Amino acid sequence: MSKNESMYKISKFAAPEFIFGIDSIDYVKRYIKNFSLTHPMVVTDSGLLSASWAKNIFKQLEGIDIRYSIYDKVSENPKDYEVEEISKVIINCNCDSIIAIGGGSVIDAAKAGGIMCANPGSIRDYEGIDKIVHPMPPIICVPTTCGSSADVSQFAIITNTDERYKMAIVSKSLLPDISIIDPKTLTTLPKELLIATSLDALTHAFESYVSLGSSPITDMFALKAIRLIFETLPKVAKDPKNINYLEDLMLASLMAGMAFSNASLGMVHAIAHSMGGYKDIRHGTCNAILLDSVIDFNYVYAAYRYDKISESLGYVLEDLNEIDRKKILIESIMNLKNKIGFNITLKDLQIKESEIDIIAKHAVNDPCMLTNPVMPTFEEVKEFIARNI
Amino acid sequence: MSKNESMYKISKFAAPEFIFGIDSIDYVKRYIKNFSLTHPMVVTDSGLLSASWAKNIFKQLEGIDIRYSIYDKVSENPKDYEVEEISKVIINCNCDSIIAIGGGSVIDAAKAGGIMCANPGSIRDYEGIDKIVHPMPPIICVPTTCGSSADVSQFAIITNTDERYKMAIVSKSLLPDISIIDPKTLTTLPKELLIATSLDALTHAFESYVSLGSSPITDMFALKAIRLIFETLPKVAKDPKNINYLEDLMLASLMAGMAFSNASLGMVHAIAHSMGGYKDIRHGTCNAILLDSVIDFNYVYAAYRYDKISESLGYVLEDLNEIDRKKILIESIMNLKNKIGFNITLKDLQIKESEIDIIAKHAVNDPCMLTNPVMPTFEEVKEFIARNI
Repeated sequence: MSKNESMYKISKFAAPEFIFGIDSIDYVKRYIKNFSLTHPMVVTDSGLLSASWAKNIFKQLEGIDIRYSIYDKVSENPKDYEVEEISKVIINCNCDSIIAIGGGSVIDAAKAGGIMCANPGSIRDYEGIDKIVHPMPPIICVPTTCGSSADVSQFAIITNTDERYKMAIVSKSLLPDISIIDPKTLTTLPKELLIATSLDALTHAFESYVSLGSSPITDMFALKAIRLIFETLPKVAKDPKNINYLEDLMLASLMAGMAFSNASLGMVHAIAHSMGGYKDIRHGTCNAILLDSVIDFNYVYAAYRYDKISESLGYVLEDLNEIDRKKILIESIMNLKNKIGFNITLKDLQIKESEIDIIAKHAVNDPCMLTNPVMPTFEEVKEFIARNI
Repeated sequence: MSKNESMYKISKFAAPEFIFGIDSIDYVKRYIKNFSLTHPMVVTDSGLLSASWAKNIFKQLEGIDIRYSIYDKVSENPKDYEVEEISKVIINCNCDSIIAIGGGSVIDAAKAGGIMCANPGSIRDYEGIDKIVHPMPPIICVPTTCGSSADVSQFAIITNTDERYKMAIVSKSLLPDISIIDPKTLTTLPKELLIATSLDALTHAFESYVSLGSSPITDMFALKAIRLIFETLPKVAKDPKNINYLEDLMLASLMAGMAFSNASLGMVHAIAHSMGGYKDIRHGTCNAILLDSVIDFNYVYAAYRYDKISESLGYVLEDLNEIDRKKILIESIMNLKNKIGFNITLKDLQIKESEIDIIAKHAVNDPCMLTNPVMPTFEEVKEFIARNI
């Protein structure tokens, strides 16, 4: 046997079964039958309840004589008390399963609620990695945004309302039984949300590619997602109802989800969870704001990987020094944001000097920080935030 | 909403959890514990029984005081009666789970044996697509070749000994619970088998890429696998113990498996199952022999897709007509075979004129033919075989 060292670290991969494609939403009834489910709890938000996609699912359930209950009180950044409420409602209504239809907030709340049907204590007890013991009831996810990938991920992000930060709960038990991914659902998403969720997906792909938990399989998904978002998002910004662009955006989001669910994430997410929880800010927006400044911070620790991203975007780096290489990548993201009209910066979030400590504290403790190319100190994170607000 | 038609067909994707990497074989004991298993049946073949990999697993089981039974009588092309035997042995030994360690034959036999523990009748009743009703006992797969991908696929190929053909059994129920993929196992595989199984993986990638069941996700896996095999296999032929080459070959095989398990296959496999069953020929060898002549037959029905493969291998096709494009791809495969010293042809299998009818009959009825770019008639398959023997 040769004495070469192994090229790849040991890596794990898990993904739920999924269906992808226009009109795949019509398969919900088929899976209700396949899984022999009798009484699902449909978890959604009040906006979606009146939209055609939820109605489509109700109609399918009625068509096969399936009784269902509805929980529609999920808020934009789902809270710990909502999770407890969902869990109680599922149990009280004698539901045997869950259908989550919505964006990342709805799906995360539904998954966490499902977990609390089967596990004791409070959702706060399950923060971190691999804390969940018992599986949730069967859950079918129907995502209606192109960013969170909660429908294919081992993550649920829930706001701890006492301490005001978003807890990352990471466990294989959070993989849904089936995800039904219909790009048609994006046709009713406001352009602003299309852009914010796509930038969330872009961040997933970037962070998983440079993650310490990356593998050749997650790399493949991440690079493909990055290329597809850079190519498609400017087109979507101009023509947000074009179904072909939306198909590619949904596909990129799915690929980014497969990458980060298995490679985990990094400093952008660690700070976004902390900051977003403290200020109740939309997750995709937080991520998009932080992405380029975190690259600036991380670059020296993962230059080779960041350069690979630039190269896969078509940049030729051969004759450039590290400073210029970094600049090219950061500028490519800023150009993309300009093209699509995303111009919010950290300054717009009005973070006060006095809030930096608590935001930095939760960020350093976030499980996503563990796979960042470098583990920053509390002081470094404070400086990072102070420099950018 | 725009009136554009959708770009992608509705596609399904399912994969087992897997671990990939050098020394990942040591995780077997962890999964025995995670799944709370108490008495696995280790399914393998007599050659592997004495090899270090099976011994490694026995040692792990003994280290955690787990009792196990052994079935080591799987033959190279597993037979229907072996499957029935495995099933009986599992039940009689009161095993609650299966560990399959070996190549595709061992893993297919173990999976099919598991299915027969939980389903009535004979394994022959489950030939075709989605016939299995009840799940098998928990199964952990440890592949020791870089071709079959039985450890990540929804397929099991079992020889019908009465009618002398290989039945394709295709069902989500055939996905293992966990696959532990350790490239180190390839260090003990004879070079001839390394080459035959790699060519099997190459065929999986080719057939899934042009399959009518392909999707953007399976395409990504297939193209990456093809590039990796073309790049790595000639190196392996020269230096078959180099662990870095073996890592890439195992990775390519895994990727090809993810592709074909979800996109299905085509005419190469349909004929290989029929011919290989009739003459008891190794599957990888059959595939490798047939790959270029099936491209010759299929090309006009999937020229665009075959050209994409050529382009991803670096060929510039712009100024070429269809005949030359086809020629380039076929020659690239023949060159690869030459480089690695694979020079068996269909003529070497000594198929008699009188055997063509029965081989063509089973090939036309094979489930893999359903996703070939074109559905050939019985007469066309007969002519195809006659022309090549």
